[in-house]
Amino acid sequence: LARTKEFDLIARYFAPLARQSSGARGLLDDAAVLTPPAGYDLVITKDMMAENIHFLSNDPPETIGHKLLAVNLSDLAAMGAAPFGSVLGLGIPRGDTTENWIAEFARGLGEAALQFNCPLVGGDTIGGLERWTLSLTAFGIVPKGAALGRAGAKLGDLVCVSGTVGQAGLGLAELKLAVLQKNDVSNAVWVKRYQQPIPRLALGQALRGIASACTDVSDGLLADAGHIASASGLGVEIEMALVPHDPAQTPIDAATSGDDYELVFTLPPSKMDALLTLSKDLGLMLTVIGRMIDGQGVQVKDVDGTVFTPERLGFQHG
Amino acid sequence: LARTKEFDLIARYFAPLARQSSGARGLLDDAAVLTPPAGYDLVITKDMMAENIHFLSNDPPETIGHKLLAVNLSDLAAMGAAPFGSVLGLGIPRGDTTENWIAEFARGLGEAALQFNCPLVGGDTIGGLERWTLSLTAFGIVPKGAALGRAGAKLGDLVCVSGTVGQAGLGLAELKLAVLQKNDVSNAVWVKRYQQPIPRLALGQALRGIASACTDVSDGLLADAGHIASASGLGVEIEMALVPHDPAQTPIDAATSGDDYELVFTLPPSKMDALLTLSKDLGLMLTVIGRMIDGQGVQVKDVDGTVFTPERLGFQHG
Repeated sequence: LARTKEFDLIARYFAPLARQSSGARGLLDDAAVLTPPAGYDLVITKDMMAENIHFLSNDPPETIGHKLLAVNLSDLAAMGAAPFGSVLGLGIPRGDTTENWIAEFARGLGEAALQFNCPLVGGDTIGGLERWTLSLTAFGIVPKGAALGRAGAKLGDLVCVSGTVGQAGLGLAELKLAVLQKNDVSNAVWVKRYQQPIPRLALGQALRGIASACTDVSDGLLADAGHIASASGLGVEIEMALVPHDPAQTPIDAATSGDDYELVFTLPPSKMDALLTLSKDLGLMLTVIGRMIDGQGVQVKDVDGTVFTPERLGFQHG
Repeated sequence: LARTKEFDLIARYFAPLARQSSGARGLLDDAAVLTPPAGYDLVITKDMMAENIHFLSNDPPETIGHKLLAVNLSDLAAMGAAPFGSVLGLGIPRGDTTENWIAEFARGLGEAALQFNCPLVGGDTIGGLERWTLSLTAFGIVPKGAALGRAGAKLGDLVCVSGTVGQAGLGLAELKLAVLQKNDVSNAVWVKRYQQPIPRLALGQALRGIASACTDVSDGLLADAGHIASASGLGVEIEMALVPHDPAQTPIDAATSGDDYELVFTLPPSKMDALLTLSKDLGLMLTVIGRMIDGQGVQVKDVDGTVFTPERLGFQHG
C-alpha cells in the first residue's frame, strides 16, 4: 500500500471518525494521547476478524465495521466498563474494489462509534493481503477496583443470561443458505443479530456490585458459562428448560451457537431483588438459567430432567 | 483455529509473558485491567506487520517478535512516553510449522517486553490466514500535557537526528541478496539494525521540554522530517553533508531508506546547550542536520551546495 494512498485513505475515511476525540490528534501523529479520568482503571481488549473466517465475503461492509467495534465493546461490557476509545488495524486485500469497501466499512464503524460513544483515536493500515483482516483494540474505563471478571463465582451462585441466545446462529445459517441458493434471506431479525450485535454496555456497568462473575456470550452460552466455571474453580449446571431462545431452535442448539454478545453472569441468591429491579429499569430480560456447582466443567439438565455432559459447548469459526 | 488449540497456545507461549502484569489477569479474562498512575496521560499506538510485506519469510521469528514491539515503542518514544503495556493480535497462516514459529516469536517478544519494560497484557489469536499477520497496540504514559508531537516546530528551529540512518536499509538489501544467492549475510550489524531495532525510549523522554516537535524515522529520514514540516505548517531543509550515515551508502540513500527507528526532532537554537548535555548523558550521537524554513515540503541541500526537491522521500514497503 503506497504511503500517499494510505495517508489519503486515512484522511478521507478515518480522520472524520476521530473528530470526536481531541486526543486522536486528527490521526496525524505517531500516537494518540488520552487522559483517563482520575479514580478509574483502564480496561483493554482486542479482537481480530478476518474475511470468510469471522464474517462472510458478501456481508455489507458497514455491518462489518459495526460488528468489529461491537464485539470488542461486548468484552468491555462483560468487565463492567464504559467505552473510552479504540484503535483500528486495517489489513487490505489486493484488488480493485477496495476503496468502496473501505468507505462503507468506515461508515458502519463511525455510526457504531457514535452510537456507543467510543471514538476512534488511531490505528494502522497495511495492504497486499489475501483477505480483509481487521483488528481493533478498545479501551474502557471502570471505577478503580470495580471491574468484573470471569473468576469470582461462588458455590450456589445463580447463573443468568441477558436477552435470548441463538438468533445470531440462525442468522448465519440463513446467510449461508441464501448464498448457496442465490436467494434473499427471509428473516432479517436473525441476520441483524448476526451482523450487527448490540453490546450490553448499560447492563455490564449496572452489574458492578451485583454480579460475582461475568463474561459475554461469544463462543456459545455453554462454552462461556464454562469459562466462568473454570476461572472460578467450580462446575456449572445449565437447565435447558430455562434458556431463553427462539422457538425455531432447540435449547441446546441455541446454547451452543455463539456470536450472541449477550452477557452471562453469576450472582448470589440474595441479589435476586436487585436483578429484578435492574431488568425492569433496563427493559431487558434477565433470566436465571442455572447455578454454580461443585466439581468442574459444564453439565446440562435437559428439558426431561436428565443431566448430561454435552460433547460440544460452542461454535467453531473457520 | 480450534478454540481449545487457541487456549493452549495462549497458556503455553503468551501467558508467561503476561506474568509481569497482574492487570493482565493471566490472559484468562475478557479484557485486561490497568491502573495508570495519577497525573499522567495515556499514549496509544498501533502498528501492523505482515509476512513478506514488512518482514521476510525467513527472518528468524524471535527477531519478528522483537521488531513488532520495538516499532510500536519507537512511536511511544517519539511522543516522549514511557512504555506501560501492550496487546497482541496474532494472525496465523494455515500450515504445519506453526507452533515452532509461535514459540520463537513469543520468546523474542517476551525478551523485548522485559528489555523495554512493557508487559503483554492481552490480545487475540486467529487462524486460517495465508501469511503471518501481526498487530500490536502499545500503551505508554507521559506526564499530563507533556507529550511530544509532530506539530510544534517553529520557523528557524534546528532539525536533529539521533544515531545514524541507513544501516537498516543496507541490512534489508543484504538479506534479499543472501536469499537470491543462497549464501549467508556478510554484515551482521546492518542485519541486526533491520531485524532488531532499538527504540530510542530514553531519548524521547529526555526530549520533553527540549524538542518542539518529534517523530521516529520509519518511512525514511526525509519523509519523516517532512511529516514534522507539514504538521507544523512549514518547510524543512536537510543538509546531506550533515546526515550521519554509513560510508557504504550515499547520504541521500541513507536519508530515504527507512526502518531506522531513530528520532528526528526540532528545537530552537537556544536549546543547543541542553542538547549537547543530553547527548553526553545518554552516550548517543545527536546531530543537527537542517532547519525549519518558510514554505512547505522537503528541500535537500546536497554536499556540493545545490538545493533541490527530492523525488523520493522514503522507502515503500510491499
